[in-house]
Parts: sequence; C-alpha cells; structure tokens
Amino acid sequence: MENDRLKKQLDFCLEIDREKFIQRQTYLTDGIRRENDAEHAWHAALMAILLEEYSNEPIDLLKTVTMLLIHDIVEIDAGDTYAYDETAKSTQSEREEKASERIFGLLPENQRRKFCQLWKEFESGDTPESRFAHVMDNLQPMMLNAATDGKAWEEHKVRIDQILGRNRHTSDGSEVLWNYAYLHWILDNVKAGKILTPDHA
Amino acid sequence: MENDRLKKQLDFCLEIDREKFIQRQTYLTDGIRRENDAEHAWHAALMAILLEEYSNEPIDLLKTVTMLLIHDIVEIDAGDTYAYDETAKSTQSEREEKASERIFGLLPENQRRKFCQLWKEFESGDTPESRFAHVMDNLQPMMLNAATDGKAWEEHKVRIDQILGRNRHTSDGSEVLWNYAYLHWILDNVKAGKILTPDHA
Repeated sequence: MENDRLKKQLDFCLEIDREKFIQRQTYLTDGIRRENDAEHAWHAALMAILLEEYSNEPIDLLKTVTMLLIHDIVEIDAGDTYAYDETAKSTQSEREEKASERIFGLLPENQRRKFCQLWKEFESGDTPESRFAHVMDNLQPMMLNAATDGKAWEEHKVRIDQILGRNRHTSDGSEVLWNYAYLHWILDNVKAGKILTPDHA
Repeated sequence: MENDRLKKQLDFCLEIDREKFIQRQTYLTDGIRRENDAEHAWHAALMAILLEEYSNEPIDLLKTVTMLLIHDIVEIDAGDTYAYDETAKSTQSEREEKASERIFGLLPENQRRKFCQLWKEFESGDTPESRFAHVMDNLQPMMLNAATDGKAWEEHKVRIDQILGRNRHTSDGSEVLWNYAYLHWILDNVKAGKILTPDHA
C-alpha cells in the first residue's frame, strides 16, 4: 500500500514535466526565446518570497508559493490561453476544469483534494493568498515585457484598456507593486508606442 | 528610500531570469530537449511539497522550498557543473562563492544575508531541510533519466560507483525515496546496461 501511494505521487511528478513544453507569449530577457509555464511558475514563486512585504494583507507564504508552483499545471491539457485572446478565453474555464480533474486525479486522494482546492482558490482570487499570487502572475510577465522593450505587447497590438482590465484587481493584492508597474513599466511603454491607446487602436 | 529597496528587489528578480538559460545534462521526458536550471528548480521545489512525508526528519517546508528555488542561482555566473565532471568540480566551490556574492548582492542587505545563508545551508547539507532538499535535487534528474531510458547516463558513460558516491547522503534525507530510486530507477538501468558497472567501464 505504501508503495502504491508513492507510485501515484511519482507518476504525478513525472507527468508535470510536460509543463515545461507549454509555451507562453512572454519573451525572456534575451528578447528571442519565449518562456514556458514551468519557468514562469518558478520565477513567480520566487518573486512572491522576495516581495511578500508588499502584500496589502498578511499572507501564508507557503500556501502562496505552492499556489504559484501549481497554478499553470492545468495548461498541460488545456494549453496556454493568452491574456488578450477573447475567443480562447470563452472556453478556458471548461478546458481547465477538465484538466485539473485528470492531472490532480493522478495523486493519492488527500493530495488530489488539497491541490484541486488550492488551484480553485487561486482561480477565485478571493483570499489574501490568491490575491497576492495573482499580483505575481501578472507582475512577472509585465517585468519581462518591459525589459524587452514591450516586444510581446507590440506583437499582439495590446491596448492600455486591455492591460488595465486584466489588472483591475492587481492593486487589491498589492498597491505598492501595482503602482510601480503602472508608473514604470506600463506608462513608459505607452509613451514609446508599444502599448496602444484607444486613438491608435 | 522605499523605492530604492523595491528597485533593488526588482533588479534581482530580473537578473535571475538568466537562470532559464543555464542548461543541464538531464533530458526532459521528450528525450530531446535538455532541461534548464529554472525548470529543474520548479520541479524539485514542487516535488518537495508533494513528497515531504518521506523526509526522515520533520522539516520546515517553506524553508526547504525556498532553498530549492534558489539553489542554482549561483550557476548564472558559475555555470552548471555536471555531477560527474571531476575537473569542473575542483573549481566549483570558488566559482559559486563569487557568484553568490555578486548575485545575492543585488538584494537589499537583510535579504542578501538571508539568501546567502540559505544557499550556504543548502550547500552544507547538514540540516534537516538541506538534507531533504538534496534528496529532491538528486531525485528529480534521476526520475527524468529513468524516464528517458537512461539516455543521459549512457551518453556520459556514468558508472554505478559514481551514482552511489554522489548519493551517499541521499538516504540521510529520505530512506524511503532513496530505496525506491535505487531499486526501480538505478538497478533497472544497470540491468539495461545504461549505467556501467566497474567490469564494463
């Protein structure tokens, strides 16, 4: 029985290797290669540890980090849905729900339940931990987009209203970090024409 | 002043993006692409969360996870030192020490100290957290090597005595996991001739 439990856990550990093949739209700092979900999750989790002090509310850091490490696992089946692709977003929730059942279903029952719940909590964004995790999930690609002179924004003809829409809850997780990102990364790229304003769209 | 602290933290966050370009010897489950340090750190950190119950001793999980997320950051400057490359290993410690000073030195002083200490504790392997972190650091590539039919072991003509040497402390962190890895992954690949025994070396 002990071995059956361990076998399930290791099957899951091996399965999630596939997250490294899910490509995102964000460019790495070389401006050439796009990052994958595993790299993004590593970066966002570590940023949560480094930037915890800027959370609006006290958070359970281990819970937040765990959330960030697992938040994109469903994309192994459901694929990456680009933040500004409205068509793909309409089916995203159904695809991801099904994926969570299959992938977390590889785990022993108590861990399946725990990880499903944690992923759903992240999706809901209605706890201090999930609010701060969403800040990291948004801040990390914004930082890379800014560091690559807005390349990904420019390629996708992203508009400022789309960014503000996507980040409408970012200041609920961290006012300090949202203000920094807005003033330094977003406005700079609006000025440089990499992020479109309504009159240019 | 607040902004100066945040600026330092974000400079560090951006700098560590380079960990995604440090290639390791381990093949991903597709058997084609080699994994990079950021992917490895994500995988090992998440495995620590999933497999904590097999630690020989109680551990502070957040500390262990943080250790794993940062354990290869020094390789941004020092490069990846392959586990069985004895020449590179002779200069490894000096290269990594210098790297830790530069890279963690980007952080505000209290975080620089904390992360340097944590990295040194990982290196020392003499606390429950660092012992278990080393189990994950070794188990994760062994799992991938086994899943790719021993390709990386075969390419590097790795011998069983080298693997046992590298893992001489793995059972100090987790007897259960070491026994599983030895019986299932290592011996299978010895039998298949992918790991060499002294008489074939």
